[in-house]
Amino acid sequence: MSCDARFSEEAAALGYSFDGEIKIGGNYTPLIRDGNHIHVSGQIPRVGNEVVVTGAAGDDTDLARARLGAQICVMRALALLQRSLGSLERVKAIPSISVFVQSARHFTQQSEVADGASELLYKILGPAGAHTRTSVGAFQLPKNATVELSLQATVE
Amino acid sequence: MSCDARFSEEAAALGYSFDGEIKIGGNYTPLIRDGNHIHVSGQIPRVGNEVVVTGAAGDDTDLARARLGAQICVMRALALLQRSLGSLERVKAIPSISVFVQSARHFTQQSEVADGASELLYKILGPAGAHTRTSVGAFQLPKNATVELSLQATVE
Amino acid sequence: MSCDARFSEEAAALGYSFDGEIKIGGNYTPLIRDGNHIHVSGQIPRVGNEVVVTGAAGDDTDLARARLGAQICVMRALALLQRSLGSLERVKAIPSISVFVQSARHFTQQSEVADGASELLYKILGPAGAHTRTSVGAFQLPKNATVELSLQATVE
Repeated sequence: MSCDARFSEEAAALGYSFDGEIKIGGNYTPLIRDGNHIHVSGQIPRVGNEVVVTGAAGDDTDLARARLGAQICVMRALALLQRSLGSLERVKAIPSISVFVQSARHFTQQSEVADGASELLYKILGPAGAHTRTSVGAFQLPKNATVELSLQATVE
Repeated sequence: MSCDARFSEEAAALGYSFDGEIKIGGNYTPLIRDGNHIHVSGQIPRVGNEVVVTGAAGDDTDLARARLGAQICVMRALALLQRSLGSLERVKAIPSISVFVQSARHFTQQSEVADGASELLYKILGPAGAHTRTSVGAFQLPKNATVELSLQATVE
Repeated sequence: MSCDARFSEEAAALGYSFDGEIKIGGNYTPLIRDGNHIHVSGQIPRVGNEVVVTGAAGDDTDLARARLGAQICVMRALALLQRSLGSLERVKAIPSISVFVQSARHFTQQSEVADGASELLYKILGPAGAHTRTSVGAFQLPKNATVELSLQATVE
């Protein structure tokens, strides 16, 4: 099965479509190619016009919902890569991802939240989905999002 | 008009000079060239010896002041690039910027603050100012700064 | 004295060993090589199974302990580089490091904490340890760590 077929399968399993416009929240560009690297802007769990996972993990929202937020963020990033490249088969590596989790004071499971995104990278991209990661507890995020995720990809 | 002339014009419009020493706050270097990439250290809105925008956005300071903070940060980054390269004309792209905004608990306009910096990149660098962006609400920042901004540039 | 000898000397001075397994906290990889760049995942001050510096700087822990946390993080990152490369002599530059410091509301010495790591980079790597830096006050960090540090290295 191709990366693109696995992407569609995981989108269906999540119950969200990433076919529409991938809206961004300000005066910047969603992704930039620089040689064989692509930088993807910070993604929040927005589907269409709605940020579907909001609030602080461990307070307004729980670990399961926060993981869903991380999954939506990484699917958005992959959707942007897919559109730009024509196919996710062209992604050769994900050198790094950064995951910011809006956190309650005593919520320390930022890594467990980020695993939601990491697992999808492995499932969809296979060995090319291996990545380094930095997970941080943020005090707030744009539009009260629970998670924000940025990544860098290497392409052929 | 050259990028350098536009830089001077925007500095005058802000009412701050970026001609003096660009002080840094610790034991590191302001920028490093790595092949045709330049990494610029996190900048806070310091002019001379004074951090001119401090406190949490949405509490100690408002959106307009926080945007000014983001503008000063990006002007400092551009001033460092200009000195290192001789001219901002040599900047070919800004693959990514990161903007941390010291935020009150319910302040969710980190993107609107970061737009202050993004708009200056476009105004001064033109198409070379296009960039990906990650905006995050921080709990605190060095020296109680309201904003901290880092960036990567690609040069010829 | 070689970088590797200086690394061992600094580890002894800190009183910690970095010879054992460098555990990571989730479903990702500790470091990825991408051409002549290596990305190292966010490190927390874990030695063996224990996170040895926890809590918010300026509240649960003081500046000296937080600096120790930053030192352990950077030693872990260097240990990972050393194992991957065979020797730290092969590190040519550290284009950037990011330091997140779990901070009390009014703790503004994130740069002073990060200096703990920066000083070790210079001591151990010499001129190759020069780096750009971004230091941010985080609300929480994985496993209640006081510090998290990620870096990029350039190798021959």
